[in-house]
Amino acid sequence: MMKLFDLAGAETDRRFSPYCWRIRLALAHKGLDVETVAWRFNEKDALMASGQGKVPVLVHGDKWIYDSWKIAQYLEDTFPDLPTLFGGPEGMALSRLHSNMGDVIAGQISRFVLLDVYEHLDDKDKSYFRESREQRFGMSLEQVVAERESRLQDFRDGLIALRMTLKTQPFFGGDRPLYGDFALFGPFQWARCISPFQLLTADDPIAHWRMRLLKSFNGLAGSAPGYDA
Amino acid sequence: MMKLFDLAGAETDRRFSPYCWRIRLALAHKGLDVETVAWRFNEKDALMASGQGKVPVLVHGDKWIYDSWKIAQYLEDTFPDLPTLFGGPEGMALSRLHSNMGDVIAGQISRFVLLDVYEHLDDKDKSYFRESREQRFGMSLEQVVAERESRLQDFRDGLIALRMTLKTQPFFGGDRPLYGDFALFGPFQWARCISPFQLLTADDPIAHWRMRLLKSFNGLAGSAPGYDA
Repeated sequence: MMKLFDLAGAETDRRFSPYCWRIRLALAHKGLDVETVAWRFNEKDALMASGQGKVPVLVHGDKWIYDSWKIAQYLEDTFPDLPTLFGGPEGMALSRLHSNMGDVIAGQISRFVLLDVYEHLDDKDKSYFRESREQRFGMSLEQVVAERESRLQDFRDGLIALRMTLKTQPFFGGDRPLYGDFALFGPFQWARCISPFQLLTADDPIAHWRMRLLKSFNGLAGSAPGYDA
Repeated sequence: MMKLFDLAGAETDRRFSPYCWRIRLALAHKGLDVETVAWRFNEKDALMASGQGKVPVLVHGDKWIYDSWKIAQYLEDTFPDLPTLFGGPEGMALSRLHSNMGDVIAGQISRFVLLDVYEHLDDKDKSYFRESREQRFGMSLEQVVAERESRLQDFRDGLIALRMTLKTQPFFGGDRPLYGDFALFGPFQWARCISPFQLLTADDPIAHWRMRLLKSFNGLAGSAPGYDA
């Protein structure tokens, strides 16, 4: 069975990395079983065989693959007869935009939930996380999320192209989700797993899409420890 | 031969609709000849058979198709053996995000070039355009584009997901352009055709992609009357 190093908080079953969630759903989409290994920031040595220190890392036989986009490509190339994540080479190329938008949205969401992440971390991870993120943002975690309510409308307005798309089709992949969906969903699942802060209004088509994905694969994402349905 | 109603300015060969350009490139991609008909805002009667009053409108035999997305789908469905615009049903669904992002970008670009559009219009179109756009924006055309230099950095920053994608592949469709490229390019070609205002820095990967598309199809877009290469 494949093994996935999966970021965990103080509680072993609080798995919250937006990038790991992309792969959890991609594996479920392909119908592949996986053993997830709870991993924490201070365990970089455990990933050494991948040649770098970040998750997700997928271990398949003697292969160690890292980076959510590369892992998704690997799964598609290695299991071409299982349900497709991309719909062919053109769909794979087109999905790169979805993945990059997901990365951008994760960056935006961090301005709302970064302190909540911190509070859920294992004690051994807290000082690393605070120092590395405060260096990245050039301010304290508390300052990063300060006055977040006042920035919420801008965040929601910035999602308009996603909203327009989901008004005319249930998933970015069409009638069923593809990797483009998982790439965009990861950041929302991340927020859900570590913060009660409500990013979307209940009547937003993006919220409805999020709910459909929470329920997909027998509720894989929706049954994970988190703050709402 | 098919016929495309194509928005023109005072000069018959100044064709500048972002949505018509999507279809011009889609037709070239399929290798389909088309007769373009210069159309102006005050000629809504000419489109009556399409059931509405906006371009692009494609006439194929007795079929009148409007809306750039619907026309692209029609071309793909009607000419499945010609070079694909989407790469299959998954690629078509995924491209919807590119199309909607293109629409959003067109709206953003209007804040920079709307007055330049006005100045290139046929005299008969000017009052319609000024009234309809001033109603839409709730301010004068002059106010819409006021202090545009100060808004330029925000516009460029907002294109980050496009930029990230074009750093790793030459086109959104991969090694060659697909409809997703044409949908995103249309707004930039619109700006080029009617305004000298420089939206992108010369070293932006988006500017390089734009240049590649200007040169595609024997320079179809790049040789059209406009303000730079």
